[in-house]
Amino acid sequence: MTSVFEDPWLSSLFADAGAARIWSPQQQLKHMLLVEAAFTRALASVGSVPVDVGERIAAQIENFQVDVDDLRHGTARDGLPVPALVAQLKTMAGSDQHAVHAGLTSQDVMDTALTLTLQTFNSCLFEQLSKVIQDLIGLSERFGAHDLMGRTRMQAALPIKVSDRIRTWSEPLKHHLRRLEAMRDQIEVLQFGGAVGNDAALGATAPVVRANMALQLGVRDPMQSWHTMRDGLADYANLLSLITGSVGKMGHDICLMAQQGIDEITLSGGGGSSAMPHKQNPVLAELLVTLARYNATQLSGMHHALVHEQERSGSAWMLEWMILPDMAQATARNLSAAADICAKITDIGTQRR
Amino acid sequence: MTSVFEDPWLSSLFADAGAARIWSPQQQLKHMLLVEAAFTRALASVGSVPVDVGERIAAQIENFQVDVDDLRHGTARDGLPVPALVAQLKTMAGSDQHAVHAGLTSQDVMDTALTLTLQTFNSCLFEQLSKVIQDLIGLSERFGAHDLMGRTRMQAALPIKVSDRIRTWSEPLKHHLRRLEAMRDQIEVLQFGGAVGNDAALGATAPVVRANMALQLGVRDPMQSWHTMRDGLADYANLLSLITGSVGKMGHDICLMAQQGIDEITLSGGGGSSAMPHKQNPVLAELLVTLARYNATQLSGMHHALVHEQERSGSAWMLEWMILPDMAQATARNLSAAADICAKITDIGTQRR
Amino acid sequence: MTSVFEDPWLSSLFADAGAARIWSPQQQLKHMLLVEAAFTRALASVGSVPVDVGERIAAQIENFQVDVDDLRHGTARDGLPVPALVAQLKTMAGSDQHAVHAGLTSQDVMDTALTLTLQTFNSCLFEQLSKVIQDLIGLSERFGAHDLMGRTRMQAALPIKVSDRIRTWSEPLKHHLRRLEAMRDQIEVLQFGGAVGNDAALGATAPVVRANMALQLGVRDPMQSWHTMRDGLADYANLLSLITGSVGKMGHDICLMAQQGIDEITLSGGGGSSAMPHKQNPVLAELLVTLARYNATQLSGMHHALVHEQERSGSAWMLEWMILPDMAQATARNLSAAADICAKITDIGTQRR
Amino acid sequence: MTSVFEDPWLSSLFADAGAARIWSPQQQLKHMLLVEAAFTRALASVGSVPVDVGERIAAQIENFQVDVDDLRHGTARDGLPVPALVAQLKTMAGSDQHAVHAGLTSQDVMDTALTLTLQTFNSCLFEQLSKVIQDLIGLSERFGAHDLMGRTRMQAALPIKVSDRIRTWSEPLKHHLRRLEAMRDQIEVLQFGGAVGNDAALGATAPVVRANMALQLGVRDPMQSWHTMRDGLADYANLLSLITGSVGKMGHDICLMAQQGIDEITLSGGGGSSAMPHKQNPVLAELLVTLARYNATQLSGMHHALVHEQERSGSAWMLEWMILPDMAQATARNLSAAADICAKITDIGTQRR
Repeated sequence: MTSVFEDPWLSSLFADAGAARIWSPQQQLKHMLLVEAAFTRALASVGSVPVDVGERIAAQIENFQVDVDDLRHGTARDGLPVPALVAQLKTMAGSDQHAVHAGLTSQDVMDTALTLTLQTFNSCLFEQLSKVIQDLIGLSERFGAHDLMGRTRMQAALPIKVSDRIRTWSEPLKHHLRRLEAMRDQIEVLQFGGAVGNDAALGATAPVVRANMALQLGVRDPMQSWHTMRDGLADYANLLSLITGSVGKMGHDICLMAQQGIDEITLSGGGGSSAMPHKQNPVLAELLVTLARYNATQLSGMHHALVHEQERSGSAWMLEWMILPDMAQATARNLSAAADICAKITDIGTQRR
Repeated sequence: MTSVFEDPWLSSLFADAGAARIWSPQQQLKHMLLVEAAFTRALASVGSVPVDVGERIAAQIENFQVDVDDLRHGTARDGLPVPALVAQLKTMAGSDQHAVHAGLTSQDVMDTALTLTLQTFNSCLFEQLSKVIQDLIGLSERFGAHDLMGRTRMQAALPIKVSDRIRTWSEPLKHHLRRLEAMRDQIEVLQFGGAVGNDAALGATAPVVRANMALQLGVRDPMQSWHTMRDGLADYANLLSLITGSVGKMGHDICLMAQQGIDEITLSGGGGSSAMPHKQNPVLAELLVTLARYNATQLSGMHHALVHEQERSGSAWMLEWMILPDMAQATARNLSAAADICAKITDIGTQRR
Repeated sequence: MTSVFEDPWLSSLFADAGAARIWSPQQQLKHMLLVEAAFTRALASVGSVPVDVGERIAAQIENFQVDVDDLRHGTARDGLPVPALVAQLKTMAGSDQHAVHAGLTSQDVMDTALTLTLQTFNSCLFEQLSKVIQDLIGLSERFGAHDLMGRTRMQAALPIKVSDRIRTWSEPLKHHLRRLEAMRDQIEVLQFGGAVGNDAALGATAPVVRANMALQLGVRDPMQSWHTMRDGLADYANLLSLITGSVGKMGHDICLMAQQGIDEITLSGGGGSSAMPHKQNPVLAELLVTLARYNATQLSGMHHALVHEQERSGSAWMLEWMILPDMAQATARNLSAAADICAKITDIGTQRR
Repeated sequence: MTSVFEDPWLSSLFADAGAARIWSPQQQLKHMLLVEAAFTRALASVGSVPVDVGERIAAQIENFQVDVDDLRHGTARDGLPVPALVAQLKTMAGSDQHAVHAGLTSQDVMDTALTLTLQTFNSCLFEQLSKVIQDLIGLSERFGAHDLMGRTRMQAALPIKVSDRIRTWSEPLKHHLRRLEAMRDQIEVLQFGGAVGNDAALGATAPVVRANMALQLGVRDPMQSWHTMRDGLADYANLLSLITGSVGKMGHDICLMAQQGIDEITLSGGGGSSAMPHKQNPVLAELLVTLARYNATQLSGMHHALVHEQERSGSAWMLEWMILPDMAQATARNLSAAADICAKITDIGTQRR
C-alpha cells in the first residue's frame, strides 16, 4: 500500500472522504453491474430478449453478489475484470445467458462505469468549486478593503487591496465552474461499440439499444463509440489540473503571505512540529501547491494515452486507469483543503487607519 | 542553435513555414508596437493626451525602427524586452513621452502581443484542422468501403471497414475544431492591468482605455487583467496537445498499417535510408507520433506555470515563453504533416472481391 | 480507493506482492520506530541518557503499539505523522521523555525510515533485475539462433538473429544492475540534522550520535543532513524509470512481434476477451509499456521536487511522498511481469531450415 | 523562430553563448563529417580500402563543403540529413565511393556526432559546475559566519549560519560533478552498428573498424551498438535536470531572501521594470527556477523515448532530437546565470554584533 490516498494516516491529509467514496472500487463494480443490467433491458426493448427475461436477468444483475476473488484472479489473467465478471453473470443467468453482455465489450462496460462515476464526481466538484468561490467572496467582504503590498517578481511593487489579490484566486475558479458545466455534456456519455467499436454485433438494433441504455443510465448518447477517441478524458484531466493549478497559486500566495517578516495573513491552527513546538506551519497551503504540481505532472501521462492504437490500446487505456482516478482525488482534496484554509483565515492585509 | 524548428536542415522536417512566420520574433515585435500605439491612441480617446499628439505618436510607434541590439542588451538586464523598448519609444517621443506606455506594464504589452499572435495562429490552425478533416473525408470516400482487420490490444479482432478506422481519426479533429472556436473567445483577449494588475495608474479612465484598446486591436476586452490567471493559456496548451495527440494516434496507426506482413496501407514517397536503399520509411507518420509525445510532455510545464505567485511571477511567466511557442509550432507541423500523409496515401485496406 | 496498486482486483494486475509488502505503511511505521529507538540508544552512547534508561526506552519504542487513530488525527493536523507519534512515545516514556526524539526532527525520522525501506527494496530490485537478465539469457540460448526480420522505423530492414533482438532487451538491464549497485551507497544513507538541518541541538555530540545511529541501522553516515538536497532521491527515481523504460521497450517489441501477420513470437496463456473468446491478448507485454510511460510521467514530478526551498519545503517533500512509492511499485511490477512474460514465451523467430 | 535560445533578444537572457556554439548545427555537421572520415580511415586500416585512397577520401570528407540546401531538401524527404549527406560525399568520391559510408548507417553517424558534441559540452559543464562551486565557497568564506533565520515549511524556525544555507546549494553541485565524471565514460561512446545494429555488413572486420574509429575520435568503444538502448542518453538528461533542479533550489531561495520584509540578501544590478523604475527584480534568480522547471518537464520526454521499438524507432529517436539539445542549453545557462548571481551578491544574512 503506497498511495497517499489510501495510507492509514497520510490519507487524513491527502484524501477527500467524499471523493474516495465516489471513486471506490465498490462503486466501480456497482456501476459495471448497472451497465450490464441496462444493456440487458435495452436488449429486451428491441425484442432481442423477451421482456420478462430481460427484466428478471437485469434485476438479478443489479443485485448480484460478485465473487471478488474470482474477479481478482480473472483480472490477473485477462488484464481487466470484465471477462470474469461476465462469466459469473452468465453462470447466474444459466439458460438465459444470451441476455447477458452479448454485443457489448469490456471497454463498453468499464468506460460507461467510469462515466457514471464522473457524473457523481462532477456534481461533487461543482459544489466544491462553488463553496470555495463563496468562501473567497466572504473573505473579500471581510478583508477586501484592507491594504496589501502588491508584489511582482517577488518584489514589493505598489500597494493594492486585499480584494485585488483574492480576485486572482476566485476568478479562475469561476472560469473552471463554467468549464465544468460545458465539460459534463462532453464527458458524461455512454460508451457503446462492441468488440471493435462499430456496433456490428447488434446490427440494425444498435442505435436503439444504445439510446435506450443512455436513457436508462442518465448519460448522453454520443451516437458512436469512443473506444480510441480519448480526447474527452484527456480534456477532463486538463480541467482537473487547471483547477488544482489555480488553487495552487492561492496556496503558494498564502505560504508567502504567512512568512514572518511579511505577515500578511493570519491563520488559526497550523500544523505542529516535532522539533519546534512554537511553530505553526501552513500545512494545508503547502498541500495546495503539492497537489497542483502532482496534477500538472500526471496530466502529461493522460495526454500520452491519446496515442491509442487501432481499435483498442491496452497499454494506453491502462495508463488512464493508473492516472485519472488519482488526479480526481487530488482535485477534490485540493478544493476541500482550500475551503479548510478559508475557514482558518482570521485576517489578511492591514486595516487602513 | 539547438531547436529543431530553427535548424538549417532539421527545420525542413519539423517546422511548418506558416507557423514559423506567425510566431517569428519580428511579428512579436510588431505586435508589441501595435499594442503601444493602440494604448497611446486610447489615452487620446479619454483626453489624457491631446488627440493630435496621440495620433502622431501612435503612428511613429507603429513605424518605429527598433534598435534590436539595445533590446537584446535590455532583455539581458531586465529579464524582458519591454523596458528597453519603452525607453527607445520615449526617446523618440521626446517631450511627448507621457503619451508612451504611461499606465501600462511590460506584461500588458507582451501578453497582448501574444494574443495578437494567437489570433492569427488560431485562424491558421482552423484552416489546417479543416483541411485534414476534409482530406480524411476524401480518403474515406475513396477507400472507406474496403475491408480492414479490426485490431484490439495489438491482436486481430474482427473485420471492420476502412471507414470505421478513419472515423476514429477524423471525429476527434471535429471535436478540436469546436474546441478551437470556443477557445478563441477565451484566449484572444486584451491584457491590461498596469504595474500590479489593478489599472490603478489610470484611475477612472481605465475601463474606457481598456475597451478602446481592445476595439482597436480587434480582441476581446476581459474587463480585468489576467496577469496571474494563466488558466486560459494552460487550457490553450491543452488544446494544442489534444490536437497532436489525436493526430499522433493516426500516425501510430499508419506506422502499424505500413508494416510488411500487415500491409494495410500504401504510401508513395517514403523516406530513404543511407544503408538500405530499398526501404521506404513512413517518416511523416512517425513524426506525428513524435510531435504528439512532445506536446504531451510540454503540457505539464504549462500547468506548472499556473502556480504563479502574487501579482506577477517572473519564473512562471518565463516558463510559458519557453514552452508555448514551441508547442504551437509542433501543432502546426503535426497538422501539415498529416495533410502531407493524406496526400501520399494511395490505398488502404482490401477491396472486397 | 483509487490506486491500481491497492484496488481489490486491479492490484492483481498492477501490484507486485513483494513490493507492496516492503512499501506498506506498517513497514514505514516499524521503520520510524526503529529510527527513534536507534536515536535513543545513540543518545545513551554519548552519555546524554543513562545507558540503562536508553536501552529500556529503546526497547519499549521498538515494541510500541502505536495508536493509529491518533496518528491519523495528528497527520491531518500537523501535515505528517511524526509529531503525534513522538507525543505517544513521550507519554510512554513518562519521566524519561528526554530520551525520546530530543534533537531529531520529523524529517530525520521519515527520511531515514524511507532509507530503510529503500534498502530492502533495492535488494528486491537487484534480484528481480538479475532474474529477468537470466531469463533473457535463457531465451537467447533457446531461440537466439533463430532468424528474425530486423525492423527499423517500423519497416522490414535486414535479417537478424533473435539473439540480436534479445541483446537489446538484456544489455540495458545489466547497465541498470550496475547503476543500482552504485546507487545504494548514495541512497541508503541516514537522515540526521535536527530542526533546521545543522545538528545544532546536539552540539559536539552530533557526529557521534549520527555515526552510532547509522551503524545501528546499517546505513551509511553521510556526515551531514540532506533535508533539502533531494538529488539522491530524484536520481533514484530516474533509475526506476530507466528500468521500466528499458523493460517497456521489450514489452513494446513483444506486442509488435505478436501481431497476426508478423507472428514472430508465441506466448502461452494470453488474456481473454469478453467479446471475442478466440483472442489471446498479450496483456502483460502491454502492461510493460504502460508502466514505462507511467514512470516516465512521474519522474518529472520528482525533479520538480528538487526546487526545495530554505531548510525544509513541505510542498516539495509531500510531492515526493505522492510519487516515489508508486514509482517503486510500478518498477517492481514491471520486472515481475517481464519475468512472467519470459516464462510464457514458447517460441521466437523462425528456425533456420 | 520560437525558441528562447535563438530569439534575437530573449536569447540574451536564456542562452549561454558557449553552449550555443557547442550545439550549433555547424558543429553537428562538422562532427558528422569527422565520423564519416574516421570510418573511411578505419576501412583502410583493415584493408577494405587501399590506405592511400582511404586517406585521400577521408581528407576530402573532412574538408567537404556541404550543400546545405540539398541537405535540407533531403532531410524533408528522408527524415534525417545523412542519406543526402552521404550521396554528396559519394558523388565527391566518384569511383572511390565504396570508401564512403559502406557499412555505416545514419544513426551511427548522427549518434556519434552527438557523442562528440557531448564530449565538448561535458568539459564545459565540468568547468561551469566547478566555477559555481568555487563561487559558493567564496560566498561562504565572506558571509558564512553571518546569522540567518532558518526557515522550514515557509516559517521561521531557528537561527542558522549563512554557511549552513550555502552548503545546501553547493553540496549537490559537488555530487553532480562526481556524477558527471562517472557519466562521461557511459555517454562518450561510439555508435557503430550498421543497418540493423549488428555490424553484419562488415563481417569479421567490424570489431577492428569500430575500435579504430573510437580511437581516432577519442571516444570509448562500447563493443556493440546502442541504437535502441537509449538508457545512456536518458540518464544523461537526468543529470542535466538534477543540476538545474539543485541550482533552481538556490534560485528559489534567493528570490525568497530578496523579499522586502525578509531582506536576507543584497544583490547589485537587478532587472528594471517598465512601470516601476524603483524596482530591482531578481531576474536571474527567477530564471534559475524557470530553467529547473523546464528541464524537470523535458526529462519526462526523454524517458518516454526509452520505449524505442525494434532495431530503430524513428518516432522515439526524433523525440530525443527535439528535447536533449534544449535541455543542454538550459543547463549551461542555469550554471552561467548562477555564476552571474554569485558575482552580484554583496551581502547575505546579518553580521553578528
